[in-house]
Amino acid sequence: MATMRALTFDPKEGVVLKRNYPKPIRKSGEALIRIIRAGICSTDIEITKGYADFSGVLGHEFLGIVEEVDDNSSITQGQRVCGEINLPCNSCKICSVGGIQKRNHCPKRTVLGIVNKDGTFADYITLPVDNLYPVPVEISDERAVFAEPLAAAFRIIEQGLINEDSVVAVIGDGKLGLLIAEVISIQKSKGLTVFGRHMEKLKLLPQGIKTVLADKKIIIPEDQYDVVVEATGNPEGLKMAISMTRPMGVVVMKSSYAMGSEFNTFPIVVKEIQIIGSRCGNFQMALDAMKTNKICPKKLITKCYSFEEAVDAMEHAMTKGTMKIQLEFD
Amino acid sequence: MATMRALTFDPKEGVVLKRNYPKPIRKSGEALIRIIRAGICSTDIEITKGYADFSGVLGHEFLGIVEEVDDNSSITQGQRVCGEINLPCNSCKICSVGGIQKRNHCPKRTVLGIVNKDGTFADYITLPVDNLYPVPVEISDERAVFAEPLAAAFRIIEQGLINEDSVVAVIGDGKLGLLIAEVISIQKSKGLTVFGRHMEKLKLLPQGIKTVLADKKIIIPEDQYDVVVEATGNPEGLKMAISMTRPMGVVVMKSSYAMGSEFNTFPIVVKEIQIIGSRCGNFQMALDAMKTNKICPKKLITKCYSFEEAVDAMEHAMTKGTMKIQLEFD
Ligand SMILES: [Zn+2]
Ligand SMILES: [Zn+2]
Repeated sequence: MATMRALTFDPKEGVVLKRNYPKPIRKSGEALIRIIRAGICSTDIEITKGYADFSGVLGHEFLGIVEEVDDNSSITQGQRVCGEINLPCNSCKICSVGGIQKRNHCPKRTVLGIVNKDGTFADYITLPVDNLYPVPVEISDERAVFAEPLAAAFRIIEQGLINEDSVVAVIGDGKLGLLIAEVISIQKSKGLTVFGRHMEKLKLLPQGIKTVLADKKIIIPEDQYDVVVEATGNPEGLKMAISMTRPMGVVVMKSSYAMGSEFNTFPIVVKEIQIIGSRCGNFQMALDAMKTNKICPKKLITKCYSFEEAVDAMEHAMTKGTMKIQLEFD
Repeated sequence: MATMRALTFDPKEGVVLKRNYPKPIRKSGEALIRIIRAGICSTDIEITKGYADFSGVLGHEFLGIVEEVDDNSSITQGQRVCGEINLPCNSCKICSVGGIQKRNHCPKRTVLGIVNKDGTFADYITLPVDNLYPVPVEISDERAVFAEPLAAAFRIIEQGLINEDSVVAVIGDGKLGLLIAEVISIQKSKGLTVFGRHMEKLKLLPQGIKTVLADKKIIIPEDQYDVVVEATGNPEGLKMAISMTRPMGVVVMKSSYAMGSEFNTFPIVVKEIQIIGSRCGNFQMALDAMKTNKICPKKLITKCYSFEEAVDAMEHAMTKGTMKIQLEFD
């Protein structure tokens, strides 16, 4: 049996770099992909704390090279690719609807490195050809790995939640919050404010985007925004978002958590606010934005590790203040 | 000083029927209205438990006769009227937007019997003429009092949340839940199911509306509905609604409450569900539906009391299993 290196998680073993993990065998309709570079996401960290009850190879952000694929496939051998992480079952009611419902919401889906499918922190993965996107030469390896999180940011645009005139706030200055802010800023000339708790993170945003340091002294501007994007990862963020949104406005929920016991739905009803969940997004939009240099997420990289140092890289990613950690394969 | 009878609430006094309460004096642009009949709403009960920190005359559902009004007003003396309960300030940013934002969402609004404005459990009220709707002769007094709660049910239609093809569930068999179910049923020939805990309440619905007794044995149908209307008044209802809604579907939040500490926003994000608050609605839609007998809410009346018995009526309204209690003035 062919083997490979893989960074695995198991509740008993924890995070381990294995050198003899079985190399995946591709099925018809799939590509075998050699990983060139991968990115560590907060979800990977959450998984090591028990999220999603996952065991197996971690990781879902990647850039790779197709090594094997069916003849006459739309993707050819040698192609640089990134790819969508949800693998729909292709046979349920939701899958028969097609479109975004199939792409993101098949109840029987597996999810790369998250649900019943080995992930990208390994020398090889398999993915359905339908999930793959060729990466234009203009996009460097380190940028290409951002296709997945940047697509998640573009999901807000795909959902049609923001128009040119919208007065928008983004709350949260983590990786996703900053990507969302950039995505919104290229759609709009004005009316965007980003609230974050870390001046050094807010400074990573392009000049021209208005930022507010949300420290303890801040007076939250109530009922001021048409759309508030909540990307803080903590329940205080949602309460702040609801408070900041104008009557009949929209709160986009990009992060999830257990709400505290004092959470009351009263302002949602009284202000007739719309709260909408937003998850995985449109890879093509993300690749187009990077190809034309409208967005360059490279500045979000804190450090790139060799895959041999993957365990250290995971520990670094867990350290407060860290933005993106990448893994380079050799 | 002219006086009148009024049922008042004050945290110290409790609920008291006063016989020498000051009769309100109308300002220009307002009508002085003699109350003919009023309805007791759950909100009135909540106020007597401390909700909204209200002190003053209770009540907001009513039918009345205009006794005084400016000359050349669109409403004339002697007109039977019902009326909207929110009184916008007419001068803020939201009011300048107009439309529904002004109607429902002025942050400086007073609200009849709820916020800084004496209510309808009294011989007289004043209301701006802009808030009033003439009641067609086809609508009896006892039905006309339902204009306000029925308008709240119609708000869901006004918000454009349901179309002909939507597969819809309503959760909750209280007064509002049943009115909502009827409103939806006249828009749709099929695809409506009402979930409630009380067979005797579900039986008040017109035949042809599918009902499910949601007792402890029920297996909640997951991911099945395009739109779920939550009208239970308890946090279990919201959790059930989120679970029943299909990916990218809509939960309409008609009731509010403190969520339990274990409430997690995870399924909202993963399923990309839209949760939207829904409050006060369109009186004209409600009056039209009653005028043409598409909806007859009379069956929801448990008992009508003389206003002299208003204290007893409030106690009856608090009793479990009671639907609508009305007050008749003489
Ligand atoms: Zn499927
Ligand atoms: Zn106003």
